[in-house]
Amino acid sequence: VPSLPTPDLVAALAAIVGAEHAIVDPDIVGSYVTDWTGRFHGDALAVVRPHTVGEVAEVVRWCAAHGVAITTQGGNTSLVAGAVPQQSVVLLTRGLNDVGPLDPDAGQITVGAGVTLAAVHAAVAGSGWEFGVDLGARDTATIGGMVATNAGGIRVVRHGTMRANLIGSEAVLGTGDVISHLGGLAKDNTGYELGALLCGSEGTLGIVTAVRLRLVRSFAERVVALVGVANVAEAVALAGHLRRTVDSLDALEVMVAPAMAVVAEHLATSAPFADAGAVLLVEAAADHDPTETLAAALNGREAIVATDRAGRARLWRYRESQTEAIGRRGVPHKLDVSVPLAATAAFVDDVMALGREHSAEVFVFGHLGDGNLHVNLLGPAPDDERLDELVLRLVASRGGSISAEHGIGRAKRQWLHLNRSPAELDAFRRVKAALDPAGILNPGVLLPD
Amino acid sequence: VPSLPTPDLVAALAAIVGAEHAIVDPDIVGSYVTDWTGRFHGDALAVVRPHTVGEVAEVVRWCAAHGVAITTQGGNTSLVAGAVPQQSVVLLTRGLNDVGPLDPDAGQITVGAGVTLAAVHAAVAGSGWEFGVDLGARDTATIGGMVATNAGGIRVVRHGTMRANLIGSEAVLGTGDVISHLGGLAKDNTGYELGALLCGSEGTLGIVTAVRLRLVRSFAERVVALVGVANVAEAVALAGHLRRTVDSLDALEVMVAPAMAVVAEHLATSAPFADAGAVLLVEAAADHDPTETLAAALNGREAIVATDRAGRARLWRYRESQTEAIGRRGVPHKLDVSVPLAATAAFVDDVMALGREHSAEVFVFGHLGDGNLHVNLLGPAPDDERLDELVLRLVASRGGSISAEHGIGRAKRQWLHLNRSPAELDAFRRVKAALDPAGILNPGVLLPD
Repeated sequence: VPSLPTPDLVAALAAIVGAEHAIVDPDIVGSYVTDWTGRFHGDALAVVRPHTVGEVAEVVRWCAAHGVAITTQGGNTSLVAGAVPQQSVVLLTRGLNDVGPLDPDAGQITVGAGVTLAAVHAAVAGSGWEFGVDLGARDTATIGGMVATNAGGIRVVRHGTMRANLIGSEAVLGTGDVISHLGGLAKDNTGYELGALLCGSEGTLGIVTAVRLRLVRSFAERVVALVGVANVAEAVALAGHLRRTVDSLDALEVMVAPAMAVVAEHLATSAPFADAGAVLLVEAAADHDPTETLAAALNGREAIVATDRAGRARLWRYRESQTEAIGRRGVPHKLDVSVPLAATAAFVDDVMALGREHSAEVFVFGHLGDGNLHVNLLGPAPDDERLDELVLRLVASRGGSISAEHGIGRAKRQWLHLNRSPAELDAFRRVKAALDPAGILNPGVLLPD
Repeated sequence: VPSLPTPDLVAALAAIVGAEHAIVDPDIVGSYVTDWTGRFHGDALAVVRPHTVGEVAEVVRWCAAHGVAITTQGGNTSLVAGAVPQQSVVLLTRGLNDVGPLDPDAGQITVGAGVTLAAVHAAVAGSGWEFGVDLGARDTATIGGMVATNAGGIRVVRHGTMRANLIGSEAVLGTGDVISHLGGLAKDNTGYELGALLCGSEGTLGIVTAVRLRLVRSFAERVVALVGVANVAEAVALAGHLRRTVDSLDALEVMVAPAMAVVAEHLATSAPFADAGAVLLVEAAADHDPTETLAAALNGREAIVATDRAGRARLWRYRESQTEAIGRRGVPHKLDVSVPLAATAAFVDDVMALGREHSAEVFVFGHLGDGNLHVNLLGPAPDDERLDELVLRLVASRGGSISAEHGIGRAKRQWLHLNRSPAELDAFRRVKAALDPAGILNPGVLLPD
């Protein structure tokens, strides 16, 4: 039974943002309570659409004073139910949509939290600069959500995650205080770097309202190569070699044999490198055609290479169609983990054995350049998380992370203890209490009860 | 009058670290109470030299329980009196000197807080990897201190500051709790990134005991060019152009005309580009000789170029001898500031005018690639900080930072309010109280009273 908003709440929100942006119509409110996978549902008191940081601050102050929880929603593309409300006001950031001018000398731009990733890419296109983070949900995912979750994607091997591409933040803390540090100074040691702390805090410490982004150079020439290797151990060794020898490396992905087979079947092609234990997808980008450098680093290995846009896209299909190919066989359990590179081969062996033991199909692919593997399990019933937990325990025992890029949200907080000690969890709670003393920001997310 | 250690304190420290590492001899203790510039003095109760994170934790727990303050000291190279004790125990990190094995595939290494920067460079030499942060105090500065102060240096334009090169941290919080996250996972979204928060917190939230460092590729070919430009505005425009067009850019320094003249006189050479308003020093590094790329980007400008080690060192002398050249004329007031690139030219004009107005010589040089300028003032008496404050107010009014890389320490906290709002300072204090509830870590540093 969803809670009802009180007249006080409705009046207060309307007074702050205007009646048309303080929404209590159950049909509309109901469209913001489910995550996009459809698996997680919550309930909301109201939906509020502020258009300025001042409005956000007023909403937070009122809610903090009245003990009303707030769940911040950007593009609602969380894969771990990080933006599903729980008897809270849903605060939509899409009205915070300013796109500042590009600073062409510094290579920086300030954008509102509600701006989509695609809009950022569009805003800087043709300037000689690019934004270094890219991911599939680019048309929907907002920059604010990507900062709150420290989003990764396919170019982390070169440019790092969101935190590394963030040069300043503006946010409203749980106290209602606005902190703003958008000056764009690459070097600035004047106190605690709250922006880096808020990045990845999943909306539990503050609401990010705007950020200043560091841009990276855009390159004219690109090459993509598909390379078969005997097994994951050889893939890891080759990945290390490429990272040491190809300075233009832009992406470094892996598909373990069953994942390669399923996608080849889906694409109705014969699998390239049919006998390979794993296939690497390597992309390099530079001012001058990096093909020769990449070929030299591959040192005589057989590779399928493309430099033109269509050819590159054809090779990327083996990686980008994984989700679709696996989805056609069933509803997978999706795990997003990191393991140390040195433990990757043994981990994949173990997870494959675990699959056989539990009669599950296991598809492993991901961003090998930074140790991030997506593990898809077919077989267990949708609500049966026993095998998920075994895999996550395996990850933890190998020194890995139970969440590489998706975050914890609601979906994984029961397992956070696998990665974080009681001392760390205590420190998290202390920081949470410091910046959100009323405990109103994104309840039920990240921190275990 | 320095305080005397109590017998309790001495016995407790000796029980934790052994009597030989719990030092109360006033002559020895006295050698740790002055910063290396000799300008700042403090007083210490004792000096303690732990050799394990467990010993650090025990010292912190005892001190927290008994209200005894701790000042952590690495190489004691702070330029802002960040490691000068104040009726506190000096905790030396030099015993935390483990240098872990290099992970050649991941490009990572774990080192203790007490390891010097030079020792890190030596540990990875010849591996195909390098550590991306470098600075002049490399033989003395410790990694722990560099993390605590988010150190920068000459390669920030390519590799960022310490925070960007940190992949994990181990630390003892003010509670005495140990937090450890040294797994080396490039992608890991499992809660708050306390390591990024501790980085730059100047020892006020926790004591960093070990870190995992991200390494960068080492390059075989280097070129250095000296380029004269008409004025600072042209220097900024050229810097932006180089950042957009030379992907191998490794350093991008500037010397404004008076700084160039004083160093040429010191080196007994005629100043290159005698009519230039400013001179840029540009370094590029790549697998293949980057000279042609750099020359193309300079687009016909006159430049002095060197690719051999001796020639490159000769050009760097114009930048690296600044401190010595200015020091021969008098004792300068040294300010380390950032200004947004777009405001740099106007700021330099204003600071030169301020110098003329106050009959001071003004020398400006620094890391133009990231907006970091060192402003040296000759004229005012050593203790007369009036002109310093005028310059820092000018910096703040231009949207700049009063401390680009040196931090706040004791020396600048009176001016922190120029950069940080009451709301930010309140948030800092809340975070401090959360992680150092007894308020024992590095008292008198960073936060204003």
